[in-house]
Amino acid sequence: MTRLTLSEAHQLSASILRHAGFSEAFVQAIAATVVAGERDGCTSHGLWRLLGIVRTLKSGKAVADAEPLVSEPAPALVRVDARGGFSQLAFAAGLPLLAEKARSNGIAAMAINHCVHFSALWVEMEALTELGLVAMACNPTQAYVAPAGGSRPLFGTNPIAFGWPRAGAQPFVFDFATSAVARGEIELHRRSGQPLPPGWGVDRHGQPCSDAAEVLDQGAMLTFGGHKGSALSAMIELIAGPLIGDLTSLESAVFDEGHNALPYHGELIIALDPQRFLGEQADQHLARAELLFETIQGQGARLPSQRRYTARANSLANGVEIADSLYQDLMALRG
Amino acid sequence: MTRLTLSEAHQLSASILRHAGFSEAFVQAIAATVVAGERDGCTSHGLWRLLGIVRTLKSGKAVADAEPLVSEPAPALVRVDARGGFSQLAFAAGLPLLAEKARSNGIAAMAINHCVHFSALWVEMEALTELGLVAMACNPTQAYVAPAGGSRPLFGTNPIAFGWPRAGAQPFVFDFATSAVARGEIELHRRSGQPLPPGWGVDRHGQPCSDAAEVLDQGAMLTFGGHKGSALSAMIELIAGPLIGDLTSLESAVFDEGHNALPYHGELIIALDPQRFLGEQADQHLARAELLFETIQGQGARLPSQRRYTARANSLANGVEIADSLYQDLMALRG
Repeated sequence: MTRLTLSEAHQLSASILRHAGFSEAFVQAIAATVVAGERDGCTSHGLWRLLGIVRTLKSGKAVADAEPLVSEPAPALVRVDARGGFSQLAFAAGLPLLAEKARSNGIAAMAINHCVHFSALWVEMEALTELGLVAMACNPTQAYVAPAGGSRPLFGTNPIAFGWPRAGAQPFVFDFATSAVARGEIELHRRSGQPLPPGWGVDRHGQPCSDAAEVLDQGAMLTFGGHKGSALSAMIELIAGPLIGDLTSLESAVFDEGHNALPYHGELIIALDPQRFLGEQADQHLARAELLFETIQGQGARLPSQRRYTARANSLANGVEIADSLYQDLMALRG
Repeated sequence: MTRLTLSEAHQLSASILRHAGFSEAFVQAIAATVVAGERDGCTSHGLWRLLGIVRTLKSGKAVADAEPLVSEPAPALVRVDARGGFSQLAFAAGLPLLAEKARSNGIAAMAINHCVHFSALWVEMEALTELGLVAMACNPTQAYVAPAGGSRPLFGTNPIAFGWPRAGAQPFVFDFATSAVARGEIELHRRSGQPLPPGWGVDRHGQPCSDAAEVLDQGAMLTFGGHKGSALSAMIELIAGPLIGDLTSLESAVFDEGHNALPYHGELIIALDPQRFLGEQADQHLARAELLFETIQGQGARLPSQRRYTARANSLANGVEIADSLYQDLMALRG
């Protein structure tokens, strides 16, 4: 393993992105996200992700210097056209207006369109909770997952995220894929030859299937939580697809043309201002939310974000460790 | 079994509610909901529900003639104080303003406060989709469900619902509890002595438990979908509890004082206007949503609402059938 300070990890990421040809705005925005992923122990959204980001740019499926275009289709709506760039810059471009609209109207929504995405939604939830707002976000990805009762890939791994601001504490944040597991987990089972646990996938006939190769090549992954998870995944396709004038996961897969690039689609973010809902009673009611968190933890249960915050504290103190092979691959991309 | 036309079912429901002492506005609103439940094959929200509704009123836990009070805390927010009445009248009172605000702002939210609730959210989703709006709703209930990793009741069965309007077709609507199953299902297993399937409940130590009595009396129910379902259920507690200045499921259980009344709490509804998101391109993008539905059904999978619409068509043609014993109980309540 190779140990890096967070600053070293950022410098390495920035130099890779710069060498790949990204504009300096993207260099900083993308580097911040992948370092946050590595720092928080989300290795699938960490430095490893730089390999896919560079591959996506080289395959012509991302615009290296896109300048996001912010517009206001309605008093409580923000639209950001990412113009083919990665989502991070589009989110940053729209964030101030989204926050302003949430504060003035009580609730507001932001559609990010035409972006390349790698679904690190928790980073965005933290940006909104830092402003004192409650937030939700979701997006389609690329079609890997069958609807409950189906047999063919249609839905993406479709993440959904939520953030709740806490005075004097790290926010309550969750961010999970609506697929039963990440696609990478099934790839690992294919390589090791291990059977899949029940509920992960189906074969081409829609029957439960424990053969990873069959699920990946002929059948489909499944959502978490049976027909309920499937319904949620369909909702995400709709509200972060057609509702915002952007692609479904199936359409995004067609757009990819077999390049295995990071997916191109849209994202919906909703922000709510507790101060506008509650007025002068806000403090009193937000204190009741704290009681809910205490009662969860008092049972020995974890808050969803707790594992990430523990990893973060450790990384801030000790830096991060990545596999030597990944470090060599990254150094080679630095040019 | 006793067969009733929908009109007879409505008249029977109305006479029971009138005899119990509800104002005529509540008589009509509650009767419409329970008949819709029976008609759609959702027997748990059907005529049977009248027994609990009358019991709740008699126990002093509902106000028979409450007049909902509508206010506007912010340009995109509606608040309806149900003043201790059932949620149906509060929803109807706020609906026109919610729709107006969604249309003028693109997105709007409605908080219903201080209501007695029986969680037939799909009825509300249909009312909003009929107006061409996309809608979501959720509410806490009473504490029966442990958070993932916990052992004690904290969350309610916390339903979440979604509606998507379709031109020339019945809307895409789902409405499900975030508990693994309804509490009634576990009661049935207690009565029959059958072991619970895995994932339904835990014992007092938070260990998986197949003993229905232990789950109901000492342990807790579980959410669907493991830690993901648990995270969603926590979100519902927060956004339809403290965010709107209303009770969590645990607080609602305390309020009940052991009366086993229908739960008293709040509800959050969000409405989004596709026309404001999409402008002149709305038709084109909504057509892509239709393609998604076709692709789901083309795989032999069902749309979430399909079973309900089939039951509805049958009930409209043939009426509904209820158990003779329930019919006798209902006739006795008619006074």
